[in-house]
Amino acid sequence: MQSYEFLLVIAIILLSTKLLGLISERVHMPQVVGALLAGIILGPSVLGLVEETDFLLKTSEIGVIILMFMAGLDTDLDELKKTGLASFVIALCGVLVPLAAGTGLFYVFFPDAGDPLHFLKALFIGVVLTATSVSITVETLREMGKLKGKVGTAILGAAIIDDIMGIIVLTVVSGMTDPSVKISAVLLRIVAFFVLLGVVGFVMHKLFSQLSSTWHQHRRIAIYGFSFCLILSFVAEHYFGIADITGAYFAGLILCNIMEAREYINKKMTVLGYMIFSPIFFASIGIKTELSGLTGSLIIFSAALLLVAIVTKIIGCGLGAKLMGFSLQDSFSVGLGMVSRGEVALIVAQKGAQAGLIDSHLFPPIVLVVIVTTLITPILLKMFMKDGSDESAVALKTTHI
Amino acid sequence: MQSYEFLLVIAIILLSTKLLGLISERVHMPQVVGALLAGIILGPSVLGLVEETDFLLKTSEIGVIILMFMAGLDTDLDELKKTGLASFVIALCGVLVPLAAGTGLFYVFFPDAGDPLHFLKALFIGVVLTATSVSITVETLREMGKLKGKVGTAILGAAIIDDIMGIIVLTVVSGMTDPSVKISAVLLRIVAFFVLLGVVGFVMHKLFSQLSSTWHQHRRIAIYGFSFCLILSFVAEHYFGIADITGAYFAGLILCNIMEAREYINKKMTVLGYMIFSPIFFASIGIKTELSGLTGSLIIFSAALLLVAIVTKIIGCGLGAKLMGFSLQDSFSVGLGMVSRGEVALIVAQKGAQAGLIDSHLFPPIVLVVIVTTLITPILLKMFMKDGSDESAVALKTTHI
Repeated sequence: MQSYEFLLVIAIILLSTKLLGLISERVHMPQVVGALLAGIILGPSVLGLVEETDFLLKTSEIGVIILMFMAGLDTDLDELKKTGLASFVIALCGVLVPLAAGTGLFYVFFPDAGDPLHFLKALFIGVVLTATSVSITVETLREMGKLKGKVGTAILGAAIIDDIMGIIVLTVVSGMTDPSVKISAVLLRIVAFFVLLGVVGFVMHKLFSQLSSTWHQHRRIAIYGFSFCLILSFVAEHYFGIADITGAYFAGLILCNIMEAREYINKKMTVLGYMIFSPIFFASIGIKTELSGLTGSLIIFSAALLLVAIVTKIIGCGLGAKLMGFSLQDSFSVGLGMVSRGEVALIVAQKGAQAGLIDSHLFPPIVLVVIVTTLITPILLKMFMKDGSDESAVALKTTHI
Repeated sequence: MQSYEFLLVIAIILLSTKLLGLISERVHMPQVVGALLAGIILGPSVLGLVEETDFLLKTSEIGVIILMFMAGLDTDLDELKKTGLASFVIALCGVLVPLAAGTGLFYVFFPDAGDPLHFLKALFIGVVLTATSVSITVETLREMGKLKGKVGTAILGAAIIDDIMGIIVLTVVSGMTDPSVKISAVLLRIVAFFVLLGVVGFVMHKLFSQLSSTWHQHRRIAIYGFSFCLILSFVAEHYFGIADITGAYFAGLILCNIMEAREYINKKMTVLGYMIFSPIFFASIGIKTELSGLTGSLIIFSAALLLVAIVTKIIGCGLGAKLMGFSLQDSFSVGLGMVSRGEVALIVAQKGAQAGLIDSHLFPPIVLVVIVTTLITPILLKMFMKDGSDESAVALKTTHI
């Protein structure tokens, strides 16, 4: 007789993430904050009710693949072309400054003790800090009524490019974990993967365009789309040593400008996400977060990491905006808008842990950064960005839970 | 580093069940037949590409829970009250005759060799034969334009009651597997479970009625509904030794006449089902089906089981209809309409296997019965039921894949 406890575990995760998500929403925070807290409460830090199992590991992996697939699908390529260069420079500075500062901070707190992976571990803290959360940025701007202004468009474009850069940096860094592998081999693998992406992307784009114009079977297209995403995720990991989420993200990107298919697939993936897989993913991060280890120097490290996370995004992105001719006030607003981290930082941290580059005691500081930056971005933006509004205020909420 | 093969396995299952499902549909069979064939082809019988893992076992369990939850949600209690007694008698005869004949057939082919579970194993073959598939019956009748006639209404009602009876018989029989447990204890547990159902049903009905009238948050209600279903499934198994699917079915039944909630939940569960869980469930049955064992006497047993499955439903249900005053022609039509087995027979067989009551070499005959009865029901009905039509012909298809 098999055990049926996993049914209860799923129900507990669904109900607690929803409950705490709703409370978060009530106090004007994204629901993802509540879902993380639910995981922390269920996990070993507080109640110890739920522990990690192979089943939870796999379902939460499907959860993050769905999230990244949808992020790819949501990408607005036209928007990206319009804001183009300005967004690129903003994103680039907004990636490089936190990357360097995060790496440096790790060295300050954890001096090299001969660990061959030490540099990569330091670099990975930097990588975690690079990721701006597109969804939180967009939702904050929408609530502010600033989504379509000059600053809003620049932020939106930069957030998208930031995501792509973050994924590439993640891929490069995690590809270097095996010390026997040369960096040139890693880069070659990445190039090979992108060549494959080009070919597969061309074929799949044709195929899905045809599918969505000749058939009116939404289900079928959604199933094909999801299968494509799963296969590309597997191929990325298995044959190229590239994170599965990179595959999922690019699967979404390949399909994102086939309007009909994109819409069907997104709708179904959204249901699949919030009904079961996303709550399990977010809760499982909380479950992994062992707060009892948060003592002494680690608390100081957390505070320092948080400060670096906020300041470097404002400086990096603000600098980028200033370079591209924005006013000082607008540059500052752009920087503020890019502060919020979110799913992506957690996803990157998760990947780092899987690759052995983030020790479990570093999870609490990272979760803290995600929660606090997510919290203060709307507050900071409301304080420092006061003019005009192109939309009425809409309650801040994420679409993933 | 964990293995990512499960991503590929899911994609292969999704694509192959869809492909073979579409081919089935093209030749006017339900898609479930194709999904079963896909599983057989992927499994050890043909390609040996996919093997059973803990992850597949758990996801397919969620799949069957979702299917039974939806079957409960789909129940039309008003319809049931209308056709009432006639349907009840038809269903009862349609359960008792196949149950007795199936049990007898097992004894003919497999004489008792001192196995303490022998009688239960025989009885379980009977239980498998009791289950009429509501969805296949309804869809066949809809296609025929007979859903709202006298015969159609009686069949529909009987199919619903048949489902409930099948579940109860399943519960009783699987409750008796442990030889140290007395049958009175089993019955007591079942009574206790139904008392709990009454209390929980009353409370949950109130709660969900209020939820769906005061809130307009479809997601939230769907998540609560799904969680309720998972918890009741767990409680049934864990505390009462009653099949989890019984819990899922009654969770659906409790919510089925709260129209708004029912609609939201059903919609979301449908997506969850066809996008991932149902294909995995149906494929996993095919994967379990070891066709290489189908030799000699087992082939003869398969043919006999099939014959018994068809004849006993026609005789049992026809007799019931005749007793309730239907004409001979109409009684025959009612019997024909109840021949099709489907998901439920497979679900019952699966449960029997888990309880150690169905040996794996008996899977192929059962799958054969499901496929053939599913195939011939529309054909038989079209041949023998020729008058009037209340709807235009609608292509035969199931909603679960």
